Amino acid sequence: MKKIIIAGITGSMGKQTEKLVSSLKDCELVGAFAPHLDDNLDLPAGTKLFSDLKDCDIEADIWIDFTVPSAVFENTKFAIEHKMRPIIGTSGLDDSQISELQNLAAINGIGGIIAPNFGLSAVLLMKFVKEAAKYFPDAEVIEMHHADKLDAPSGTAIKTAQIIAESRNPEDITEKTLEQNPARGADYEGIKIHSVRLPGYVAHEQVLFGGPGEALTIRQDSFDRSSFMQGVKVAIEQVMNLTKLIVGLEKIL
Amino acid sequence: MKKIIIAGITGSMGKQTEKLVSSLKDCELVGAFAPHLDDNLDLPAGTKLFSDLKDCDIEADIWIDFTVPSAVFENTKFAIEHKMRPIIGTSGLDDSQISELQNLAAINGIGGIIAPNFGLSAVLLMKFVKEAAKYFPDAEVIEMHHADKLDAPSGTAIKTAQIIAESRNPEDITEKTLEQNPARGADYEGIKIHSVRLPGYVAHEQVLFGGPGEALTIRQDSFDRSSFMQGVKVAIEQVMNLTKLIVGLEKIL
Amino acid sequence: MKKIIIAGITGSMGKQTEKLVSSLKDCELVGAFAPHLDDNLDLPAGTKLFSDLKDCDIEADIWIDFTVPSAVFENTKFAIEHKMRPIIGTSGLDDSQISELQNLAAINGIGGIIAPNFGLSAVLLMKFVKEAAKYFPDAEVIEMHHADKLDAPSGTAIKTAQIIAESRNPEDITEKTLEQNPARGADYEGIKIHSVRLPGYVAHEQVLFGGPGEALTIRQDSFDRSSFMQGVKVAIEQVMNLTKLIVGLEKIL
Amino acid sequence: MKKIIIAGITGSMGKQTEKLVSSLKDCELVGAFAPHLDDNLDLPAGTKLFSDLKDCDIEADIWIDFTVPSAVFENTKFAIEHKMRPIIGTSGLDDSQISELQNLAAINGIGGIIAPNFGLSAVLLMKFVKEAAKYFPDAEVIEMHHADKLDAPSGTAIKTAQIIAESRNPEDITEKTLEQNPARGADYEGIKIHSVRLPGYVAHEQVLFGGPGEALTIRQDSFDRSSFMQGVKVAIEQVMNLTKLIVGLEKIL
Repeated sequence: MKKIIIAGITGSMGKQTEKLVSSLKDCELVGAFAPHLDDNLDLPAGTKLFSDLKDCDIEADIWIDFTVPSAVFENTKFAIEHKMRPIIGTSGLDDSQISELQNLAAINGIGGIIAPNFGLSAVLLMKFVKEAAKYFPDAEVIEMHHADKLDAPSGTAIKTAQIIAESRNPEDITEKTLEQNPARGADYEGIKIHSVRLPGYVAHEQVLFGGPGEALTIRQDSFDRSSFMQGVKVAIEQVMNLTKLIVGLEKIL
Repeated sequence: MKKIIIAGITGSMGKQTEKLVSSLKDCELVGAFAPHLDDNLDLPAGTKLFSDLKDCDIEADIWIDFTVPSAVFENTKFAIEHKMRPIIGTSGLDDSQISELQNLAAINGIGGIIAPNFGLSAVLLMKFVKEAAKYFPDAEVIEMHHADKLDAPSGTAIKTAQIIAESRNPEDITEKTLEQNPARGADYEGIKIHSVRLPGYVAHEQVLFGGPGEALTIRQDSFDRSSFMQGVKVAIEQVMNLTKLIVGLEKIL
Repeated sequence: MKKIIIAGITGSMGKQTEKLVSSLKDCELVGAFAPHLDDNLDLPAGTKLFSDLKDCDIEADIWIDFTVPSAVFENTKFAIEHKMRPIIGTSGLDDSQISELQNLAAINGIGGIIAPNFGLSAVLLMKFVKEAAKYFPDAEVIEMHHADKLDAPSGTAIKTAQIIAESRNPEDITEKTLEQNPARGADYEGIKIHSVRLPGYVAHEQVLFGGPGEALTIRQDSFDRSSFMQGVKVAIEQVMNLTKLIVGLEKIL
Repeated sequence: MKKIIIAGITGSMGKQTEKLVSSLKDCELVGAFAPHLDDNLDLPAGTKLFSDLKDCDIEADIWIDFTVPSAVFENTKFAIEHKMRPIIGTSGLDDSQISELQNLAAINGIGGIIAPNFGLSAVLLMKFVKEAAKYFPDAEVIEMHHADKLDAPSGTAIKTAQIIAESRNPEDITEKTLEQNPARGADYEGIKIHSVRLPGYVAHEQVLFGGPGEALTIRQDSFDRSSFMQGVKVAIEQVMNLTKLIVGLEKIL
């Protein structure tokens, strides 16, 4: 049995993770952490709740974190130092913090995973795009989100463009004589990104590849955040075998 | 029997039109015009060829024009003055020329059609978009063309955006607080247009509409110019009933 | 001010309709009907609640019905006899009941609308499909729904196929020598329908049209039933101008 | 310099391969084989033409075969016995012939490739589908072809379904209570395949994956057979490093 602590148990992702853990036969929820405990929490008997890291004296194999950017570094450090393998879904760790945590994990001899995105369709899209760009260097990204999304392009679209740029051979790109033009979208290292913002839409991304006489399109649609639980499940299955603290769910797919 | 003259018989569109006319039971090719006659032309017996308007003494019901911008105005004038109903696929007529030709048609009591685009899928898309924009004021246009297309956005995409802008009620548009941003594409009267340029692609356009909890998408794909013949066929069927010189195939669909 | 009664106020659609009516400046909710009244209802002051048609002595212009199949006929009859224009979203009326109600509406000199589907994207899709089938007689329907949907094809897909069959000219269909084959889907009057059932999907339909060298695709996605409110809004705007009891939102789009 | 013989030089694929080889800096066409030589062939100076295997005394590194099913086995045998690495695009080899050729290649110590499909987009689609099915066991295949295609489903769609069936864990599939139904398409080991046949379409395949709250779609479009040349190019680049006679371009992508 894998013993698990969930940090951020009162949030939406924490609650969904709790249901997931309950449904897994080889897992047991042993602890739950939230700074402000909520009386309505309906946790399995025997789960210890705590609202301060200092109060945590529970032995566990895995620490799953869906808390807030301001807490995630201290939480992850605490988990590693107490030999709990971290599965981190909270955003906010910067590059130097990640390096420090990776060193700490190496010293303590445990693996773990920091995943900015637990949506399997998005992570698989990026994995496939990396491969496809080797053979189809000409590619463009279209991301579509609800009208309330304030930033453009989406972080995922930028990351996708970076993956294409790193994977393709610049010599193979078809030259275009078209002048720069607002209709051609944002340019990330030569990859065009187009952002659509419309009511009704949720979160969608497609990558279009074109070559002589053919086209390849990879598309993912996220309808709601329940989709993240499939990714968390994969992480729980794999984390005991990891020997390093890795970044990105794609590393274990 | 509708008697037909094809102007521009030696071009690709002229040749396809000749095949179309031959296949229609109620049509007869009586004349063919080209400044430089091509000996390899294999026209039905009895078709008179001529290489100068002055040499044309043929009576016909319909004049179909796939020539060049520099010739189209004189050709169309000639057709109308000789009581032939024009079906004009040649580009290059400006607004004042079109007005003059419309007056001339009215004086001569005949109808006709000037069509910048004979592709039925593109014309129907624009017709449907006009209707949809009344109920879905939030819309974006994505057009996708081969990597050699030099201009962006495409003329069809701009026309599509104009149709949306004219048809929708500005008060119904969902407000977006997003700053202007290259990823958001070109802006035509508040409609965003995104242009994709990739090898393998031919000529494609899609319009995305979004509303609360739903989306509507209309897409057209043009794989080759043979598609224009369906539109020419519709024009031949309808032109005898027209009482004006109209612009746009959508007027008779 | 249009005075409105909502029948089925305690259901999900009834509640959403109540919010819609509250947001419309020229509408006033004057009555609400539900067989089992719910104390938690938070209706505008002055709205009369009743749980039996006999208790309804309210004067209103419009009766909006989202109740149950067993009640809808009696409700609609009641509304018409009391000079309230019916907007009926409840399913379950059969052809003879509809005829009877249409006669009753004619006698009472009022119009109204029975709409099996208030989703604007689905209704517009059907309207456009009717038009497109005249020019693109070759068409296939693909509908995609969540894995729990028990019937296939969907009712909307069957209706779409019927519209295509009625609208296209059978002589124009491209002959196919392919033998009947399970991969080719269900056949409704010569139109192929394909039904996809997958988790994650909600309710989506696309119609593919193909012609020489080109293709036209119309697609609609319903993500949640909030989308129906746009259609109800259109019905409220138009119902006072109707002189008959019509069936289908497409009649007033 | 890689010395290359092209068998089937007079066919469409042979001619395209000749152009490809001419454009590659590290390749030299040394021989061309066709049973009926065509005087119009415009081959590089120094290319030896032959119309019978007996007349072939040319030394080459690679034998590229786009001939006919009745000739491909003897051709490939000949190539291997003469230490030429085969790249076989001709269909028609059965399983026992492939085994025999693989043994022969092992004895002669050379590698090669037999590829039923050189279209990179189709081959990559199958590669990605194999990976995706591990995480998205619920999948359906939709293939779309021109109206003249006589068989359904396409061979590629059947192969795609087999890949999904082999890759996914049957225990993870979402149970559907829906009865078998023509609209649900053909069933290959539990995977539904839908075949669309419409004029205008060329050759297209999409695989739809669905999971809780999300969807992943992979689509490929083949517009013309020029697309195969990208796959042949990859095969030429890799074949000198192969130590076995492999089947399927996906093995070297």
